[in-house]
Amino acid sequence: MAGKLYGIGIGPGDPGLLTLKAKEILDRTGTIVCPVKKEGEASTALEIVRKAVNISGKRIVPLVFAMEGGREQFEECGRKAGDVLMDILSKGEDAAVITLGDVSVYSTYMYLDGYVSSKGFETEIIPGVTSFSYAAALAKIPLMLGDEGLAVITPKGRSIEHALEGFENIVVMKSGKHMKEMSAAMTARGIPHENAVVVSRAGMEGQHIGVIDERREFNYFTTTIIKKVMR
Amino acid sequence: MAGKLYGIGIGPGDPGLLTLKAKEILDRTGTIVCPVKKEGEASTALEIVRKAVNISGKRIVPLVFAMEGGREQFEECGRKAGDVLMDILSKGEDAAVITLGDVSVYSTYMYLDGYVSSKGFETEIIPGVTSFSYAAALAKIPLMLGDEGLAVITPKGRSIEHALEGFENIVVMKSGKHMKEMSAAMTARGIPHENAVVVSRAGMEGQHIGVIDERREFNYFTTTIIKKVMR
Repeated sequence: MAGKLYGIGIGPGDPGLLTLKAKEILDRTGTIVCPVKKEGEASTALEIVRKAVNISGKRIVPLVFAMEGGREQFEECGRKAGDVLMDILSKGEDAAVITLGDVSVYSTYMYLDGYVSSKGFETEIIPGVTSFSYAAALAKIPLMLGDEGLAVITPKGRSIEHALEGFENIVVMKSGKHMKEMSAAMTARGIPHENAVVVSRAGMEGQHIGVIDERREFNYFTTTIIKKVMR
Repeated sequence: MAGKLYGIGIGPGDPGLLTLKAKEILDRTGTIVCPVKKEGEASTALEIVRKAVNISGKRIVPLVFAMEGGREQFEECGRKAGDVLMDILSKGEDAAVITLGDVSVYSTYMYLDGYVSSKGFETEIIPGVTSFSYAAALAKIPLMLGDEGLAVITPKGRSIEHALEGFENIVVMKSGKHMKEMSAAMTARGIPHENAVVVSRAGMEGQHIGVIDERREFNYFTTTIIKKVMR
């Protein structure tokens, strides 16, 4: 019988935010696949998993996953990774792909899942805690209340000002290099600067929670929450 | 020494989606507070926790939490609940408030936290997996990829069609009674109906994953994902 492929969201960084199911699957699965941006790079996801799961004796397979690009690149990436993994699954072994945060938020895992499923293998996705839920928890602010809406964007994908126009609350992911734009958009819409919270490296070494600061250097893992109305 | 207040997101329904931290805190905390919509009502959150945590011997405190309303109602609700809980905390005992999904997504817990903090007590928020992450996992679709945006709305709060105008992906929470509106908005924007996935009671008894269906009765816990482009 063929093995099963798991796509696991390991949460935003704190190993305590792995789910019970994620830990249970990772404990019993012999192969852990960690996405890397380029070959030879250390995997942040694996460093987090290592703190909650004993990985000694497990096979660790680093695979390059495109973080950006178009559908064709994502699909090619899924096929390449899939071909490597189907070798393992065909031998009757399970494999677990770990992704930071939640699997459905900016992860190309779904393409890998689609490809491997189409070849007749069983797959399962375990959702995880997102970075923006964690940022809100650390800042002790709600993302939305009552019937408010929430927009989650990246600064490359969408105008911050436009999102602020239509929504009471916005989350700007990958916002480390975009302090100036966020600041300008808030000023343009008359939103006080204390209504923004910047959280970087949540749950990891060097965690920082603060305000929009154009002079500070922020990490790739930076999430900003902007609220039209603070409580 | 006074006790500590925890606000814990227990995830969308499957007890396996509690985080390691949530379970660890609930295991050692003597008082579990479960929000109910009205007095005497059973708590869905408690039913889920019970499957992952041994609650025998613990004090269970049901508290009425406003799900809808304005800021004044949320604040009053927070004060009322806070006064009950500060009695417990003052005796040196910890208390954990459990909320379905994630604490920052449509939960008034933050008001309780703010009030109790303002009185000098220590508090901590543990984020959880949201219903929309779980819905995406079950449907095996990404919420967003590359630099796409995501809008999370309720049908009462915002026009579905307007959200579809500005965003590649939208999540409509509490959408069980709004099939007709969603269907009409998709038709108006030329989005094929197979680009929507309706997930109700995810991880609970009676779980259902399907298409928008105006003839079907859907539960309160219904989340719909609409994507302009399916992979």
